[in-house]
Amino acid sequence: MKLQVAIDRVSLDAALALAKQLDPIVDIIEFGTSLVKDYGLITLREHPLHLTHAKLLLDLKTNDEGAYEFKQGFTTEADILTAMAASAKATLQQVYDVTQQAGKELLIDLLEVDHARIQSLLEFDQAIFGLHHAKDTGTGFDAVATTAQFHQDFPQVQRIAVAGGIDLAQAQALAAQGIAETVIVGGKISGASDPVAAAKAFMEAIK
Amino acid sequence: MKLQVAIDRVSLDAALALAKQLDPIVDIIEFGTSLVKDYGLITLREHPLHLTHAKLLLDLKTNDEGAYEFKQGFTTEADILTAMAASAKATLQQVYDVTQQAGKELLIDLLEVDHARIQSLLEFDQAIFGLHHAKDTGTGFDAVATTAQFHQDFPQVQRIAVAGGIDLAQAQALAAQGIAETVIVGGKISGASDPVAAAKAFMEAIK
Repeated sequence: MKLQVAIDRVSLDAALALAKQLDPIVDIIEFGTSLVKDYGLITLREHPLHLTHAKLLLDLKTNDEGAYEFKQGFTTEADILTAMAASAKATLQQVYDVTQQAGKELLIDLLEVDHARIQSLLEFDQAIFGLHHAKDTGTGFDAVATTAQFHQDFPQVQRIAVAGGIDLAQAQALAAQGIAETVIVGGKISGASDPVAAAKAFMEAIK
Repeated sequence: MKLQVAIDRVSLDAALALAKQLDPIVDIIEFGTSLVKDYGLITLREHPLHLTHAKLLLDLKTNDEGAYEFKQGFTTEADILTAMAASAKATLQQVYDVTQQAGKELLIDLLEVDHARIQSLLEFDQAIFGLHHAKDTGTGFDAVATTAQFHQDFPQVQRIAVAGGIDLAQAQALAAQGIAETVIVGGKISGASDPVAAAKAFMEAIK
């Protein structure tokens, strides 16, 4: 299983410094939606990370104008961009097509969508399906049980990422479960007093 | 009825210049999601518009982290910010509360949501409900019929804005209908060879 670390709600300088520290350790570095909306894609493009090991995901959360946003997003160093499953099907088709043409990756964020909507997206079989518990609900969720249920409901989905307040024990359990391709961790690493040590602990836990 | 003009997918310099030209004419100037994601809120804050007549709407399209995004958004000159109706209810509660505390306005974008979801949002009675036909679908929609149906389904909603490829004839018909508070026009004004003349023609049509 891969470890994705989300960096959010910090200054760009802090985000760049942390990303460089985490690059040799983790699999994917996510620059969260707050960094995209606070600084913009043009500024991100002007401050390249030159990652040597990790991939870069920009959490664009596209809702509309899919082709435009994804073409702009892929002018940065991003390897992976995100779009909302709740968007129009035409938007998801556009972002899927732009991603395939660019030889990059798409994560479809399943925030707040129902079974029928997910069913309608299964044709996007190269996409990563992101199980996502909204931070704003203020409640935890059982990542392992949610992943098991999703796999039972949609066994044809090959690529699954899981996000939502995941701690070390949950990450370890997800790795043991063997369904998810990627676990996404935010504050438990990027907000730790020693993010490098925290990232190493997570990598050890999911080995 | 008010006229909102959306400016999108242009350089910031072009957007600022057009906004200043349109300020004395139209009621609301929208900086679209592309401007937010390309340039970022910090850059927008550093390039104030100092509008003298029109209000400024930033099409943030918030999906999560509602309080953070709206607090950041209101550090700009924005009078109105947008959030997606498809978000978690907790996110919409956060953006509604931040907006009320700031004495500003919230537009809830109804893109791709169903009747039950809208029903669950009626308590946000100070919000503007944005009827929105996704650009990416590539199809037109009947703005007048859609507005009439929405008003029949949800007569308690006081504030309605309508967007989606609206032309002069549709704007005129919406004004005559007398339901919508605001008509949102994009390319038919901001993409016109003479945007000022186009804006004046729309203002005349909805008088």
